[in-house]
Formats: sequence, C-alpha cells, structure tokens
Amino acid sequence: MAVLTFIGGGSFGTALGVHLAKNGHTIKIWDIDEKNIEDINVKRENIKYLPKVMIPFNVIAYNNLVEALRDSKYIFLSVPSHVIRSVCKNIKPYLSSDQVIINMAKGIEDNTFKRLSEVISEELTDNKVAIISGPSHAEEIAQDLPTTFVVSSLDTTVSKEIQDILTTPRIRSYTNDDLVGIEIGGAFKNIIALGCGISDGLGFGDNTKAAIMTRSMNEMIKVGEVLGGKDQTFYGLTGMGDLIVTCTSMHSRNRRAGILIGKGVNVDEACKEVGMVVEGVKATKAFYHLGQKYGLSLPITENLYATLFEGKDINKAVYDLMSRENKSE
Amino acid sequence: MAVLTFIGGGSFGTALGVHLAKNGHTIKIWDIDEKNIEDINVKRENIKYLPKVMIPFNVIAYNNLVEALRDSKYIFLSVPSHVIRSVCKNIKPYLSSDQVIINMAKGIEDNTFKRLSEVISEELTDNKVAIISGPSHAEEIAQDLPTTFVVSSLDTTVSKEIQDILTTPRIRSYTNDDLVGIEIGGAFKNIIALGCGISDGLGFGDNTKAAIMTRSMNEMIKVGEVLGGKDQTFYGLTGMGDLIVTCTSMHSRNRRAGILIGKGVNVDEACKEVGMVVEGVKATKAFYHLGQKYGLSLPITENLYATLFEGKDINKAVYDLMSRENKSE
Repeated sequence: MAVLTFIGGGSFGTALGVHLAKNGHTIKIWDIDEKNIEDINVKRENIKYLPKVMIPFNVIAYNNLVEALRDSKYIFLSVPSHVIRSVCKNIKPYLSSDQVIINMAKGIEDNTFKRLSEVISEELTDNKVAIISGPSHAEEIAQDLPTTFVVSSLDTTVSKEIQDILTTPRIRSYTNDDLVGIEIGGAFKNIIALGCGISDGLGFGDNTKAAIMTRSMNEMIKVGEVLGGKDQTFYGLTGMGDLIVTCTSMHSRNRRAGILIGKGVNVDEACKEVGMVVEGVKATKAFYHLGQKYGLSLPITENLYATLFEGKDINKAVYDLMSRENKSE
Repeated sequence: MAVLTFIGGGSFGTALGVHLAKNGHTIKIWDIDEKNIEDINVKRENIKYLPKVMIPFNVIAYNNLVEALRDSKYIFLSVPSHVIRSVCKNIKPYLSSDQVIINMAKGIEDNTFKRLSEVISEELTDNKVAIISGPSHAEEIAQDLPTTFVVSSLDTTVSKEIQDILTTPRIRSYTNDDLVGIEIGGAFKNIIALGCGISDGLGFGDNTKAAIMTRSMNEMIKVGEVLGGKDQTFYGLTGMGDLIVTCTSMHSRNRRAGILIGKGVNVDEACKEVGMVVEGVKATKAFYHLGQKYGLSLPITENLYATLFEGKDINKAVYDLMSRENKSE
C-alpha cells in the first residue's frame, strides 16, 4: 500500500482517491479551496464536485503543498488541462526527483499544441511522467462500478507500478507504451463528442451519431498517425472506448455544448451556458490547423471548424458531408 | 429511377422502401400476411411493424411472388436471418438470372455457421448477390434521419449500382469489398450487445459498457481475421458503427434480453419475454465453438457462453474477467 497525492480536489481526483483509499492506500488531496478542504476533512463529502459519496478517513485534504507532497511517491495531477503548466510550476519547488508525476487531464495545450506529458516534462525536468486515460466517468468510479484504465509512460517500470496501484476488484488496467496515441486520442475525442452533440441538437438519431463516431475515428487516426501515434491505440480503450463513453453520456460538457449549438445557440453562449471549459471547441481549432499543416483531408473536423469559427450554417455543413462524392469505406 | 422489390414487409424493409420511394423509385413489397398487405396498400401504414409512418403511393405490397418480382432488377431480402435459406428456395422458381439479390439480414446460419451470402449463393446459383449493412435503425430511416450504409458484393459493378440507389440527400453509402468482414462483424456485434445488456442489468455503468464494447472488438477481430475478414472493416460502419448503435439503443432485442439476464432471469425466459429471435444467444454459441476450433482466446465470449449455457454465475464471470492477469492493451 502506498501514499498517493492528488493535486486538485475535483470530481475525478476525488473519485479515484476514494476508490483507492477503500483499497488500502493513503490518499492526500491538495486543493486551493478552503471550503472544499473542510468539506472533505470534516463532513467527509466533496459537496461541490462529488456529492453523496462518503469519503473514508484515510483520505486527507490539504491546502499546504509541502504537507500534501510529503512521503508520497506518486503525484496525480487531477486539474483541468489549461492549468497543467502553471500547476507544474507551483509544485516544482516542493518535489524531489524520485516522485512520479501522473497526469489525469485530457487535452492539448493552447497555441503550442503540445501534448500534456510534453508540457509536464518541460516544467518538471527531473521527474518521471506517466499518464492514465480510458473510459472513466468519476461518478461511476466513486460507486465502485467496473472501470478500465490505460497507463502509459516512457519508463515501462513506472507504467507497471501504476498499473499495480490501479488494479482493484473493480478496476482493471492495461499498459500501453504509445504515449502519443493515447494523448491525441483523448484530446481528439472531444471534437467528436461536440459533433455528436450537434447532431443530437439538430434532432438526428442514433444512426447519424454512430456514423459520425465511426467516420470521425478515421480523422482521429489520420491526425494521430501523422503525429506519431499507433492506429491500434486509437481503437483501444483510450480512443474508441473513451469516445463511446463521452458521446453517449450527458456527463460530457462537450456533448452538452454541442446540443446547444445544434439547437441554434451561438458558440460563445453555448460555452457560457455549459459553464466550464469546453475542450472540444479548442481542440477543433487545434486539430483543424494541424490538418491544414500536414495536408490531411478531415471533412468532419473541417465542417465543424467552419461552423464554429467561420459562421457556416450547420445545415449546410450536414448537407456537404452527406453529398460528398461516393467512395469506398 | 428503378423498380425495387423487398421480400418481407417488416420494419427495416418497409422503412428503406418508404425512403427510396420518396426519392423516386418504385417499390414493391412482398409479404405473407394479408392484413399487413392491406394496411400498406389501403391504409398507407404498416401498422404492425412501422406504425405512424405514411407510406407513399409508389409503394405497393403483394402477396403474389410473380407480381412482386416482375420488372424488378434489385431484390432486397428483408427477412430474419433464420429464414433466409427457405425464402431463397421459395423465390427461386420466379427469378431470372439478371436479378440481383441484396441481403439485409445479419447473422450466421445455425449449425452450419455459414455466412448469409454463402447461404444465398448456394440456393440461388444463377444470381449475383450483394449485402448491405451498417448502423441503420429502421425507425430512423423512415424519419429521413441521416444514415449510412455499406454495400458489398463479389461483383464490384453490382456494389456501385446499389451504392447509387442508396445515395439520397439523407443516406450516404460506401462500398467495401470485404464481404466476410462485414458479415462476421454484423453477426458478432449481437454477442457484444447481449453482454452490454447484461452489464446494464447488473447495474454497471457507462465505464463498464465502454470497456466491454472496446475489449470485445478485439475478440470480433480475432475471430473475423481467422475467417478471412480484414481488421479495417471491423473498425468501420458495419463493425464499430453498428456495434455502437446496437449497444446504446433500447431498439435492440439483444440488449433487452441481456438486461433481463443481468437481472437474474434465466436465458430461455429472457428470450421468451423479448418475444423475437435473440440473435446474440445463437451467435454466442456459434462464435464460442469457432473460437475453440481455431484455438483463440476470447475471454468475454467464453464467459458469456459459460453463463448462458453452463450455468456459470454471472457475478463470478465478471470477477473472472476483472481479475485476469495484468497485461498490456
């Protein structure tokens, strides 16, 4: 049994922490929000992000980074993707080189289009870095429903250590050394979720959504392979698996924003109404530009980009996608 | 514009017929049920199988095979998989060799484990045979919601002709010459839908279901490749796409039967309660035996088989699947 630190007391970090605490590990959660810390430590409930889940006594929340990081070999970053770089800068003074950093966020950095493990490695040059991904809604992990993860790191010993930690009667984990494929798949799937949401918002059905998901996978793979990922990874738990869970669930912010856009709400208002960062909107821009740079044909991404950023009518986009020249699959 | 015949006035044949009629084709439907024929021809509604959909006047239903087949170049078989062979025997005397047979059913033949296009070619030796597959709920086609198909035939000219017919403002079709991969994917996906239903019936979540779908795809591909299919086909519309639409929809009989089994109802009762043929139960048996024959490791299929046919406790099956030796993806 190990001491594990989660940086960020959101739903995903808290849920995984609670599950691992029930399996015997000692869990430290660092958070900036004093109220959240008190809720966790005193009320034994993360009222804001993971209500109605009892938090065991071997989970302790801290506001102090030194205390939160002490004695812990594995540091899980459970913060949104856009703050990963600043969080790394903040924790750097308190880290020792034998502590392993495990990223739980999905996305790519704005403007630089860097993968998050690249961002972390740039900031924390002395530490080993790993990522976990896969179809894993926080709410369901907290309820101990069977869940799978994929663990990846440039260091395969580290991957296996984390795989062991993430092996419980209700969690099954796989290792996969294709860091690029896992990170690109996790980021790209948010575009597809946004597209599926739009389809739902337009009143289309399951046939349409299944077609969007399947044909968009082709685009994920085209971009992913150009960037160095392996096609098998995209068809695995972190690509297809995560895509399925995201596109079929109302938990997904991307899908909810898409539904609003499909109903005619403009992009900025849709993002505002969903209330949190809509990764898919940023990802559409990033992958559209990557597609242009590498000369790739990405019809779904291109039509989504035109709709979100160039004012193209969504019905015209659907028509254009349906009436492309006949081809083989 | 062409004259098209549908053998079988069920939901799928009627829905596609109605859609193609609205796009200018002349549609003939053959059915055995006089009441159904009268409903279609007089009330302009297939009350039994596709209620609340208006049937245009260029759709005519027949009880007489000679009339139904006359002047029609393309004969769509829209009947359940287990009657394909007998239907072929029935229509054979009235067919001419220039008529093309297009199978719409999914499944493999009981006992022989033959693909349906093989069955049709055995019976109708003089006719060209094609299949259509993909994520295509009948109810949504009838509502003109955007839908995709994949067309396959040993004769690529035939595939392209059918692709043209199945190209409308709301239907987009692809050709794919991997007949084996399409037919095996369409049959195997019913096993996965059954497994997903069981997971839902046990009260598991979206994480679990996404993991089952993704890891089962590995098994579909193992079996499919041994039988001569291409892995790219399984990741396309007729594999992954159809799988998604089946596993996430309450339209699926396989999923509904699975939910009952997951809740503790025994297999025979579950099939009886669902009321129609549960293809996934038969497919589990067929693919389990194929897996044994070729020495394949198919953990999900094997546990499902043991649960359905050998009385294995479903919770023990879940435990066994979750606690297999740690591995890479």
